[in-house]
Amino acid sequence: MNERQPVRRPGGRSARVGAQVHQAVTDLISERGYGNFTVGEVATRAGVADSSVYRRWGSLENLLSDVALTRLNAQSPMPDTGSVAGDLRTYAAQVAREITGPDGLAVVRLAVALSADGRQGPQARDGLLAERTRQMQAMLDRATERGERPPGVLDVLDHVLAPMYIRVLFGMELTPDYVDGLVDRLLS
Amino acid sequence: MNERQPVRRPGGRSARVGAQVHQAVTDLISERGYGNFTVGEVATRAGVADSSVYRRWGSLENLLSDVALTRLNAQSPMPDTGSVAGDLRTYAAQVAREITGPDGLAVVRLAVALSADGRQGPQARDGLLAERTRQMQAMLDRATERGERPPGVLDVLDHVLAPMYIRVLFGMELTPDYVDGLVDRLLS
Repeated sequence: MNERQPVRRPGGRSARVGAQVHQAVTDLISERGYGNFTVGEVATRAGVADSSVYRRWGSLENLLSDVALTRLNAQSPMPDTGSVAGDLRTYAAQVAREITGPDGLAVVRLAVALSADGRQGPQARDGLLAERTRQMQAMLDRATERGERPPGVLDVLDHVLAPMYIRVLFGMELTPDYVDGLVDRLLS
Repeated sequence: MNERQPVRRPGGRSARVGAQVHQAVTDLISERGYGNFTVGEVATRAGVADSSVYRRWGSLENLLSDVALTRLNAQSPMPDTGSVAGDLRTYAAQVAREITGPDGLAVVRLAVALSADGRQGPQARDGLLAERTRQMQAMLDRATERGERPPGVLDVLDHVLAPMYIRVLFGMELTPDYVDGLVDRLLS
């Protein structure tokens, strides 16, 4: 098993285990839905020992939060194109690619499930929203500094991100024209 | 148990069992999340026999679809106030009340889970969306007949319903001013 392979560089095995476990989580969410699997099943799918998962994440809930936070933050670095229209179009296109990709629906469902979970929700939600909000605010602040008049973070949430998320959740298509149109409408 | 009470009028016991089973489903979704309970647990919570549930709904999936369809359609009849602004404001306020009420989050999560479920999704989603779309189109058609220029159904989905759903899922507040503002912005 992978557990027995030699460590070649510091962090190498750890990074590989992390990637395998994250992929196992998104696969299981795609197949069974949020909450319908155990740490043992994640470990088996990832080819690692249960104890490796518990040692690193402590619980299934912490693991699920980590996957959602990693996916939603890492895959959409904020663009810096020189104009708020360019930044928002690029950002919206990135989000669209991410949430319509192979694991996209699983990631959206995970974010929704964590956000709505009475026990885990507030903490997971605050983590997700705080990081996204900080990144987006920095992008919009750059626009203000250039003398543009950007929309607020909540307007982007309401009128660009929310429609895309809801359309993906309801199985509807996101075309590039549709995504650009959401941004143009917000800026008009 | 309720099963043993005499039937007083045609449909009386059936309607009561239906209401009890629906409430048991929304309670269990609130407590455990979508998918984390069985027909047997629903029946026990509702105080009815497992066989009553299977006879009427056939499967847990059919029962969950029925609850979502009933809640989302029955609780928001389309208003007819005489103007598209009045209709949309009234409708948006109804949806806001429904999804921020005691079972609201459970209903939203159920709709999302069914919509995103690879096996059940397309059928359940089409049922949910087709009925809602039909109702809303009729409301907007009345506006056109009065000589108004109403938005399209998808614009209402994208810019009034989607922001409300996403804000509820992420645990954010929906104030009446915020909800009115979504409608005003769409019509402006």
